[in-house]
Amino acid sequence: MLIRARVTVTLKNGVLDPQGKAISGSLAALGFAGVDSVRQGKVFDIELNAVDKQSAEADLTAMCDKLLANTVIEDYAVEIA
Amino acid sequence: MLIRARVTVTLKNGVLDPQGKAISGSLAALGFAGVDSVRQGKVFDIELNAVDKQSAEADLTAMCDKLLANTVIEDYAVEIA
Repeated sequence: MLIRARVTVTLKNGVLDPQGKAISGSLAALGFAGVDSVRQGKVFDIELNAVDKQSAEADLTAMCDKLLANTVIEDYAVEIA
Repeated sequence: MLIRARVTVTLKNGVLDPQGKAISGSLAALGFAGVDSVRQGKVFDIELNAVDKQSAEADLTAMCDKLLANTVIEDYAVEIA
């Protein structure tokens, strides 16, 4: 069966995010006064063929551990549609 | 009030995603045989102060239009926690 999944990779708390800081500064410069913090992450929309949802979830978790996320500094979440 | 929001920016359908294609190729090389397609997007976790959720949503939409997304080739979704 065809599985559509979304994997979201975000920086762990406490890891510096200079890109987010830059965006936050740019938003303030554009006049958005209320912005407290911005943290940027990645999202992967993946279509894969799998026997069932369980095996798809196992595959997606393995993909995150091996390629999509750097688990030293990043967290990931797998969401199957 | 402090509003926590997540903005997801993804490429519109039909827009080429060479980065996604490269990830898809790498996953195949790692032995994940079932991967059909990968498309990469961005996610922004934003904390902002706003009077209420409605004004926060208006602000976030304006941020997307002005800075966070390139609306010619990207779609965005705003989600308030």
